[in-house]
Amino acid sequence: MMKIHDWRTGPYPARVRIALAEKNLQSQVRFVSVDLRKGEHKTPEFLAKNYSGTLPVLELEDGTFIAECTAITEYLDAFAGAPVLTGRTAREKGLIHMMNKRAELELLDAISVYFHHATPGLGPDVEIYQNAEWGFRQRDKALRGMHYFDDILQRQPFVAGEAFSMADITVIGGLIFAGLVKLPVPANCETLQAWYGRMQERPSVKNRVTMSEPAKASI
Amino acid sequence: MMKIHDWRTGPYPARVRIALAEKNLQSQVRFVSVDLRKGEHKTPEFLAKNYSGTLPVLELEDGTFIAECTAITEYLDAFAGAPVLTGRTAREKGLIHMMNKRAELELLDAISVYFHHATPGLGPDVEIYQNAEWGFRQRDKALRGMHYFDDILQRQPFVAGEAFSMADITVIGGLIFAGLVKLPVPANCETLQAWYGRMQERPSVKNRVTMSEPAKASI
Repeated sequence: MMKIHDWRTGPYPARVRIALAEKNLQSQVRFVSVDLRKGEHKTPEFLAKNYSGTLPVLELEDGTFIAECTAITEYLDAFAGAPVLTGRTAREKGLIHMMNKRAELELLDAISVYFHHATPGLGPDVEIYQNAEWGFRQRDKALRGMHYFDDILQRQPFVAGEAFSMADITVIGGLIFAGLVKLPVPANCETLQAWYGRMQERPSVKNRVTMSEPAKASI
Repeated sequence: MMKIHDWRTGPYPARVRIALAEKNLQSQVRFVSVDLRKGEHKTPEFLAKNYSGTLPVLELEDGTFIAECTAITEYLDAFAGAPVLTGRTAREKGLIHMMNKRAELELLDAISVYFHHATPGLGPDVEIYQNAEWGFRQRDKALRGMHYFDDILQRQPFVAGEAFSMADITVIGGLIFAGLVKLPVPANCETLQAWYGRMQERPSVKNRVTMSEPAKASI
């Protein structure tokens, strides 16, 4: 059975949990918890699994580790079944990967840098170097990014066009992170807020945190 | 005919030029030069093509813009023909995307931040905000990244395994950028240096800068 090394409530882990549920592959993985607050993702043991020291990491049955959300999503999306998250045609693949990367650069990764550099982040034992000025710049970039995605969603129903894709999942990850760091979506980004409301109703998004709970024994 | 908006000698443009040549698609594109030193990539006109203000950008015949090297490579790789740069199987796709992203995070993007923040970069008119401390941190990260890729290449012939892929192209982009900013590959990274020597002999890498020159009229 495949394993997912992650942290239940993390925004990056959310990307893979949502992708798993969209592809209906939950029953094919076991979750292994890596405690971010204790810095377990920065130990030599974990760094041997993922040099970059980030979650989540997919472990295949043969012991191969696949890190990075986009890479894990590509792996999972190669399994049969709708929806296709990474695109069918050249044009779809190109647009989805562009918008996915843009959602990282302009929103999710920017909020992550803000969190780790301009707030207490995971605490002093984990955040051994901080650059607050850079963190605040990235916060401001993320707020501009919210306006950008608001504008995009005024023109099309999903981040990369007419269908739900990996790019939507990455924007969702960004807004999950924004919620955790109490960075509100600007009030005038009404389209983005409405879209996020709809996304939160998707079972893959709604149930992502409890996905790794052992099934309760029925009476 | 498709267009590539880029800058001949840029390290990110190199990624797409190399991918184009590997897929033998050079004759299907026209290059449009965007002068980085004049900040043409930060003008409102260019930002309408690519919100993130980076090169290269692929323009399709229908006027669609596809930015981000990985996205453009996915687009081009959907064309038939060897080599396959982004993987055939789930496992190949996962590993190639992981190593491609790692080459960005740990090498190419780190050197880019160093260049734009801790050196004069593209000059004072373009580099309107710099954070030198962050830039130097990223330089040191890139040097550690060189050791990491040296180690990987001691165990396998290419960055993502047994075959040339998009991940190799991204490491090549990183080493092109390292050369431009005069950040030498550490002397004890002999395997990385030898691999880069072999990569520079590939026609796609060797001819990347002159690719956009109009063909010379024969006598």
